[in-house]
Amino acid sequence: MDIAHLGHLELMTPVFDKSVRFFTEIFGLTIAGEKGDSVYLRAYDDYERYSLKLTAAKTNGMKHVAYRTRSPQALERRAAALKGTPFEIGWTDGDLGHGKTFVCKDPDGHVIELYYETEWYEAPPELKPSLKNQPQRFPGRGINPRRLDHWNGLAVNLSECREFFEKYLGFRLTERIVLNDGREAGIWLTATNKSYDFAYTRDATGVPGRFHHITYAMNSREEILLAADVFLENGVFIETGPHKHAVQQTFFLYVYEPGGNRVEVANAGARLILAPDWKPITWTEDERKKGQAWGLKTIESFHTHGTPEVAHK
Amino acid sequence: MDIAHLGHLELMTPVFDKSVRFFTEIFGLTIAGEKGDSVYLRAYDDYERYSLKLTAAKTNGMKHVAYRTRSPQALERRAAALKGTPFEIGWTDGDLGHGKTFVCKDPDGHVIELYYETEWYEAPPELKPSLKNQPQRFPGRGINPRRLDHWNGLAVNLSECREFFEKYLGFRLTERIVLNDGREAGIWLTATNKSYDFAYTRDATGVPGRFHHITYAMNSREEILLAADVFLENGVFIETGPHKHAVQQTFFLYVYEPGGNRVEVANAGARLILAPDWKPITWTEDERKKGQAWGLKTIESFHTHGTPEVAHK
Amino acid sequence: MDIAHLGHLELMTPVFDKSVRFFTEIFGLTIAGEKGDSVYLRAYDDYERYSLKLTAAKTNGMKHVAYRTRSPQALERRAAALKGTPFEIGWTDGDLGHGKTFVCKDPDGHVIELYYETEWYEAPPELKPSLKNQPQRFPGRGINPRRLDHWNGLAVNLSECREFFEKYLGFRLTERIVLNDGREAGIWLTATNKSYDFAYTRDATGVPGRFHHITYAMNSREEILLAADVFLENGVFIETGPHKHAVQQTFFLYVYEPGGNRVEVANAGARLILAPDWKPITWTEDERKKGQAWGLKTIESFHTHGTPEVAHK
Amino acid sequence: MDIAHLGHLELMTPVFDKSVRFFTEIFGLTIAGEKGDSVYLRAYDDYERYSLKLTAAKTNGMKHVAYRTRSPQALERRAAALKGTPFEIGWTDGDLGHGKTFVCKDPDGHVIELYYETEWYEAPPELKPSLKNQPQRFPGRGINPRRLDHWNGLAVNLSECREFFEKYLGFRLTERIVLNDGREAGIWLTATNKSYDFAYTRDATGVPGRFHHITYAMNSREEILLAADVFLENGVFIETGPHKHAVQQTFFLYVYEPGGNRVEVANAGARLILAPDWKPITWTEDERKKGQAWGLKTIESFHTHGTPEVAHK
Repeated sequence: MDIAHLGHLELMTPVFDKSVRFFTEIFGLTIAGEKGDSVYLRAYDDYERYSLKLTAAKTNGMKHVAYRTRSPQALERRAAALKGTPFEIGWTDGDLGHGKTFVCKDPDGHVIELYYETEWYEAPPELKPSLKNQPQRFPGRGINPRRLDHWNGLAVNLSECREFFEKYLGFRLTERIVLNDGREAGIWLTATNKSYDFAYTRDATGVPGRFHHITYAMNSREEILLAADVFLENGVFIETGPHKHAVQQTFFLYVYEPGGNRVEVANAGARLILAPDWKPITWTEDERKKGQAWGLKTIESFHTHGTPEVAHK
Repeated sequence: MDIAHLGHLELMTPVFDKSVRFFTEIFGLTIAGEKGDSVYLRAYDDYERYSLKLTAAKTNGMKHVAYRTRSPQALERRAAALKGTPFEIGWTDGDLGHGKTFVCKDPDGHVIELYYETEWYEAPPELKPSLKNQPQRFPGRGINPRRLDHWNGLAVNLSECREFFEKYLGFRLTERIVLNDGREAGIWLTATNKSYDFAYTRDATGVPGRFHHITYAMNSREEILLAADVFLENGVFIETGPHKHAVQQTFFLYVYEPGGNRVEVANAGARLILAPDWKPITWTEDERKKGQAWGLKTIESFHTHGTPEVAHK
Repeated sequence: MDIAHLGHLELMTPVFDKSVRFFTEIFGLTIAGEKGDSVYLRAYDDYERYSLKLTAAKTNGMKHVAYRTRSPQALERRAAALKGTPFEIGWTDGDLGHGKTFVCKDPDGHVIELYYETEWYEAPPELKPSLKNQPQRFPGRGINPRRLDHWNGLAVNLSECREFFEKYLGFRLTERIVLNDGREAGIWLTATNKSYDFAYTRDATGVPGRFHHITYAMNSREEILLAADVFLENGVFIETGPHKHAVQQTFFLYVYEPGGNRVEVANAGARLILAPDWKPITWTEDERKKGQAWGLKTIESFHTHGTPEVAHK
Repeated sequence: MDIAHLGHLELMTPVFDKSVRFFTEIFGLTIAGEKGDSVYLRAYDDYERYSLKLTAAKTNGMKHVAYRTRSPQALERRAAALKGTPFEIGWTDGDLGHGKTFVCKDPDGHVIELYYETEWYEAPPELKPSLKNQPQRFPGRGINPRRLDHWNGLAVNLSECREFFEKYLGFRLTERIVLNDGREAGIWLTATNKSYDFAYTRDATGVPGRFHHITYAMNSREEILLAADVFLENGVFIETGPHKHAVQQTFFLYVYEPGGNRVEVANAGARLILAPDWKPITWTEDERKKGQAWGLKTIESFHTHGTPEVAHK
């Protein structure tokens, strides 16, 4: 129980200006800071200063993901558990918006930052909300996601990854896909009452450390339908959706931001995992072949497109 | 962190048959058991066997509320903490659907049950869902709430109650109303990432132990608008809403079931409390007078109607 | 301007009892009459007695479609225009719910009834609505469509059909698909402010008189998403959707009723054709290949499945 | 049947710049022209060049309302019918966006323009939509109404007004309120399949020619709930709603633009008046006292606030 929640992701983009324009004008995030080659972006109900660090780079993909711990002690406990393991990278002083940070990597090589000290967002006067239980004004610009929800990585060996997250970080598995040969092809884990804070999907290319998508939460399915129109009008590539996942029942819509990274907007309705002893749901290969909840076939690129992009056979 | 979540409520009704018909045919709950003078009811995504025990009685109001602990050890810890205090009532063997139970009461006299062992709902064949991550088929009958969300009690001294829940049960305060004279007039507490699992409102009558409402979660605001039509068509008394609360931002609709108990259906959008160190929001008397989020004045009966009903000056 | 609106369809089903159960318990229509091998069904806001006549038969498909005229004189004018043409079938005394009827067929052989005298629905006491501007109580059972919206026929030669409907019945073309070889592949026509009261799609099988789908209007897109869950839970075959058509922008969901006939639920948002001189929109073959509005590819069966079913090469 | 639909309104505002900013940045209309003291504004799916002419003036209120006829002949017929009556004002050359116009006034003094020739909106390149059956790109800015829907006038003698609109312009009454003393207190009339294109409400002040509100159509009720948040965040005065009218069943939200004129956003679901012989619904004084559909009491200012504003006793 040491991890409180997903904090932020750092995504790389080879077309920085276009990506910034996408995330601010079309996606409706707000710039909460700039430093070096990066801008720090936030949704209107993220309580921390930002939830997405966008960094100019030669390629796309995820540079790191950060989780906030429940307390300073929890941070020390996680660091102690990882100390001396092959996953340890070490302590840093943190970054804009958060303090002292322990860095590690998962068995697939995704870089993970753990931190507790964080900067709560203080809206400038023109962005003050009308309701004081919300950190920032509802933008009314583009699609207006509420908050960061989860992310999805690609990994070569999902079972190793799952064990890592269960053992070292205390995440709980809520659902998974197991192929007929016994290999896990998808895992969904949580540290909160959300049914997942992140998911990993098997990377068929054998290239480790890749990124599948980042997801922001919308307040309703109707907001996702409206987002689809906004994406359509702005020439954003819509990969698949809106539709409802059978796994986790999330209502989803996937697009690619100009830098090539996949971005999802999602709504879970009122679904939460409240049981402290939730028994993971296992989906078989046959069940998975049925496609999404209402019968939409899973689009081929969903299995192949990740960032950075690699050649497929 | 010993309490996992709100488990169920036991409500009393002097018109048992009418109340059962309301909760099953109009509200869309399913009967999951019957014993003595009670029926046990559930929403389609409640993972436990039931979330509402409805009991024939001479009056209305709440007989008890039950919270599930995170583990058997957590249950023992809470019992040990309460043992010997004026709040202790003692152990029981449990009830249909849950095991060994420690019973206590809060400073206002509401009876609280704590338990860990619980029966997971197993749907009979005709109620099996199509998606295996859901315990029961979506009913498609009446208003179809997804799951129990929270409840609201009335209490004479809110500060005493808040301290009780913080100290003995580990709930965290997320929002509150403080009057100009310094008294708390409303408190919202949580043990989960929901922004509240229950709330207490000041009872101006001075009568302790009363009940304000039970709330089921709907997947969307549109489902609440549809519910309003279903209530209208079935002659159910709509007290106020649909509208959006300023406090907690919940989209709400309040009705009275035939027994007189207030019932709410609500949707929180994608709002969650993810911060482990959330700083409680305090609303002043003046802010409260502004009414609900979009300006609807708080209806008078919201301050006066509770169950069991008492004479007002 | 002689046609007022689409009145009803008569659909045939080889599995009568199952189809009746589908349309009443899952789809949420109400039985408003029975005669011979037929039941007469209605949505809650259809002002006429019924909008669907369902008839037991050896096959599936549409037996006839009926349009109401704006006045008795309008009916006489349409009959006079058709008298002596190859399309004339002749006068009948009508059927349950409507009076004197002129019957004709379109160039593809679909049977069309024209009538003016109609029976306004009078709800029995238990189905009286709470609001007097609605003929029947909102059912709160299954998916609850509001009213009949449109239907879609298959035809071998769309241009002939279009000219027939424009010349003899005064329908106006609002949108169409024209293939690279100049043939029309889809036509949408209206007699109202709805953007279409019916559509015809080119039948590649060369078999005339076939039926593509009947459509009921839902109040919102969210109701269509809820309908998808109801269909899923009841084992109804979902062919495609929910998604948004590029043509006419209709939000759609297609299922097959047990008799094999395709049934759509749809929502047009606030879109209406108000211009009396609307200029038809023409979609090219290339534009059509882009799929639906948000990129969903048009499903193959949408081009091949019609009723009665015929063998495809 | 000579009137096709409501074309546009000209509203006056004493705070022109603030009103323009409201209608463009918050309300999401687009400027489609400027001339003299006026800007011409449009919603994204209005097919004509504009639907709102906003004019700087010393007061607020409506300067004129314009209806488009079904044909040039229809315009001539309406002019001929009104020629020589006390309602005639005479012909003009039109205005930006529409040609030759016959001007008259109703018995209460509201100025009415009738025209046929109109300019279809042609979007500049940056506002071209992705779907060719829509005149302009969905803005994704503010609340994004789809199109002008209706307007509401105040009048001293509603029966005289109703008879004028029925006799001279061919509108049909669909619903009305009749007081116990026999006077009409509200009338709703239509020339389309919408259940009303305008309404008149009894003006208790005895001052003729006043304006109650203009209404734009939203695609869904959820869009209206989102609009409420946008209004809240921008300090726009919300008078009442969101809620559902009993009369006409419209889901509504009323605000005041900075110039003091009341503006509504509304959604009718899939409700249409398709019957050519619709029998008007009459609501009694007692029924009216029940308030709106789900029990919200009609707010007092709804009976008193009109523009230009006058002193009330």
